[in-house]
Amino acid sequence: MKINCSVYIATSLDGFIAKPDGNIEWLHDPSFTIEGEDFGYSDYMGSIDALIMGRNTFEQVLTFGDWPYQKPVIVLSSKSLNITEELEEKVHLTGGSPVEILDWATKKFGYKSFYIDGGTTIQRFLSASLIDQLTITKIPVILGQGIPLFDKIANDLRLELIDLIKFENGFVQLIYQPKYK
Amino acid sequence: MKINCSVYIATSLDGFIAKPDGNIEWLHDPSFTIEGEDFGYSDYMGSIDALIMGRNTFEQVLTFGDWPYQKPVIVLSSKSLNITEELEEKVHLTGGSPVEILDWATKKFGYKSFYIDGGTTIQRFLSASLIDQLTITKIPVILGQGIPLFDKIANDLRLELIDLIKFENGFVQLIYQPKYK
Repeated sequence: MKINCSVYIATSLDGFIAKPDGNIEWLHDPSFTIEGEDFGYSDYMGSIDALIMGRNTFEQVLTFGDWPYQKPVIVLSSKSLNITEELEEKVHLTGGSPVEILDWATKKFGYKSFYIDGGTTIQRFLSASLIDQLTITKIPVILGQGIPLFDKIANDLRLELIDLIKFENGFVQLIYQPKYK
Repeated sequence: MKINCSVYIATSLDGFIAKPDGNIEWLHDPSFTIEGEDFGYSDYMGSIDALIMGRNTFEQVLTFGDWPYQKPVIVLSSKSLNITEELEEKVHLTGGSPVEILDWATKKFGYKSFYIDGGTTIQRFLSASLIDQLTITKIPVILGQGIPLFDKIANDLRLELIDLIKFENGFVQLIYQPKYK
């Protein structure tokens, strides 16, 4: 059974996914809104079975108010989660290495296609050569500092550019597949 | 007289212009070569009167062997340069704030259009709201660490996407104009 892990994320021109405190309001600036355009988000969400994210990202999502996901979310944490009864069905808690996590999610729930989210989790899965595709939306803003999408890796990682989409608000979506050695 | 400052630079997907030691060999990987394609470099160089770069970038260029520029180069340094007689005509040394540098180069030589090069110098001119256009070529490689193109800035800086060019080797050229407040 082929397992597929992918990333769908926005970064500033200088490569940050959030401000230092996790804030992503800059991303939702009203001037970026294009009526009826979701930048491929619904199609992408329709293509995955579950999300995998770290505890920090999960807690950031909780601050958004309404729970934004239809798909189940796997939260990586060694501590138990303090969540509402409504979320208990939608959120699974686990830990371990990326390979162990995928193995667990596949055996327990039959999930095959995963949305890997959050800087640290993306970096872990990328270092384990487990990310199959990255969709990176470049937002036309320089933040100067923040939480980077990428971090140190052991070796240079080449990628293949699969597609490129330009939006009229200045967003540029770059779709890459890593070429692991 | 309108003075124009622009940037033409390549970065890794994670936003580095060089490895931590200044190395840019990854950029010249033979697999990136497209016969007869210079990624707009000649046209760009034809459009500028002079380059402005910091001492570190200048010293990095000297290590390349043959001097690569037809256009005059203004090096920003408070120390004198140890250069060959051949380069003395082509290289000018100055210092001061970005505004003072442009003022000096315009009055002394009549230059109007400048290629601002090197991370630190680009950051200084950007912070002074003096960069009119950036051409950033995204190379399909993640380096993990290196010298970043951008650094901390006082406020978020929005940009307008002017153009987007995709090359068959996976390079993506993004052309932006900053929208200073």
